[in-house]
Amino acid sequence: MTEVPRHPRAPATPAEVREACRHGRWRGPTAGLAPGHVQANLVVVPLADAFDFMRFCQRNPQACPLIEVLDPGDPEPRLSAPGADVRTDLPRYRVYRGGTLAAEADDIRGLWREDLVAFLIGCSFTFDEALRAAGIPVRHVELGVNVPMYRTRLPCAPAGRFRGPLVVSMRPIPAGLVARAVEVTARLPHAHGAPVHVGAPEALGIADLDRPDWGDPVPVYPGEVPVFWACGVTPQAVALHCGVELMITHAPGHMFVTDLRAGWG
Amino acid sequence: MTEVPRHPRAPATPAEVREACRHGRWRGPTAGLAPGHVQANLVVVPLADAFDFMRFCQRNPQACPLIEVLDPGDPEPRLSAPGADVRTDLPRYRVYRGGTLAAEADDIRGLWREDLVAFLIGCSFTFDEALRAAGIPVRHVELGVNVPMYRTRLPCAPAGRFRGPLVVSMRPIPAGLVARAVEVTARLPHAHGAPVHVGAPEALGIADLDRPDWGDPVPVYPGEVPVFWACGVTPQAVALHCGVELMITHAPGHMFVTDLRAGWG
Repeated sequence: MTEVPRHPRAPATPAEVREACRHGRWRGPTAGLAPGHVQANLVVVPLADAFDFMRFCQRNPQACPLIEVLDPGDPEPRLSAPGADVRTDLPRYRVYRGGTLAAEADDIRGLWREDLVAFLIGCSFTFDEALRAAGIPVRHVELGVNVPMYRTRLPCAPAGRFRGPLVVSMRPIPAGLVARAVEVTARLPHAHGAPVHVGAPEALGIADLDRPDWGDPVPVYPGEVPVFWACGVTPQAVALHCGVELMITHAPGHMFVTDLRAGWG
Repeated sequence: MTEVPRHPRAPATPAEVREACRHGRWRGPTAGLAPGHVQANLVVVPLADAFDFMRFCQRNPQACPLIEVLDPGDPEPRLSAPGADVRTDLPRYRVYRGGTLAAEADDIRGLWREDLVAFLIGCSFTFDEALRAAGIPVRHVELGVNVPMYRTRLPCAPAGRFRGPLVVSMRPIPAGLVARAVEVTARLPHAHGAPVHVGAPEALGIADLDRPDWGDPVPVYPGEVPVFWACGVTPQAVALHCGVELMITHAPGHMFVTDLRAGWG
């Protein structure tokens, strides 16, 4: 595979990415950074909601595969990135309050409380690399844009107050490579695993592929099939749907980069 | 594979096993019952401990792969066995209080509280079938005894108050089939997955294979290697080690039989 680095001066190791975020030198999407390492969605909720949210993740493992759940009040992912700090080490955050997107932020130290619990959830950027290594083109990586993500009409399995629609990411795959794409991603259950749906976006309630709910649209060419994977933005759709008091997340595409190798798990 | 039924009148389907337990007609181990279906370890803790225990499971996924976590106060596994009741549908229970085994019971309805949370954790009985289907002999099944289980000196990753030693189960495997046994079980992460250790029991702190801490001893013949898998009895060792106020579990070997097919997950 020929790799053309999109960001000539982009940070290259997980520690460099996190440090660049911490000091404001990187505010962009993290796709393609620190290749070979697991990237993660971030979800922070108060302890009062944490057990319900953890059951939500366990019941929806394709959307929310758990990489690490930090101890209450602890901002350091001691297992997946010792020494890191989830309050500063992502490029951009979103703050949801009472079912609305209340703010974006570069740093959440000012919002931190001793009763907050951080969840790190697997991310499809990990399998984008695996797809490309298997010779399967990944359109949004080629175009240097964010992956398109869509709210579906499939409900997640609820847990406590957490309920809402499944969110999926979409990649156009040449028809002859669809089976291979399923095989490759099925081996990565901590990065959403196999697709949840192949073709027929209308069956998911997606009216127009050119209008994603998050991320950027990408073209689907003749001979290609839109393939849909469960997406770690699902908790953000759930926060909007069911009005949780407080949920802090990464901004879509702006992930936490762990020290774990992609073959982990 | 030639199957000789050990229990000519044993219940055959998951629902039959659970009904037989509920009405006191089955009080024995569940190995070999309802073939093709996922069996599960049971752990019940108060809600005040449940989020800590769930993080313990997430951090020790080989010992404690989560199949289902029930809502607080709910005895029905709505996802893995709709209509069943974890208070009555296992052959035998153990009750740990303050770090000691306080009682065994046939039924835990009298102990149930609205703040109790039931965890169903994957069980190696699921992969015993897969091993035998792959032509790998499983000694304790052949002998009709319970699998031998040992407390090791490997510490589990702690979470909150939950900490303690890893417990392993052991199967003697012919040396030429060890790699195959690893392959077969690695495909079943919800049933403890690949072995944690192959050979050299002394390195785990196991002084005498003939004296397991739970279950029955089985002979290891010349040309065989003792192979060790993480075991779902680990939470019981943890209850003893760290003195949790209350933990109710299955009796070792006396599992909850779900409706899930063994290929699940």
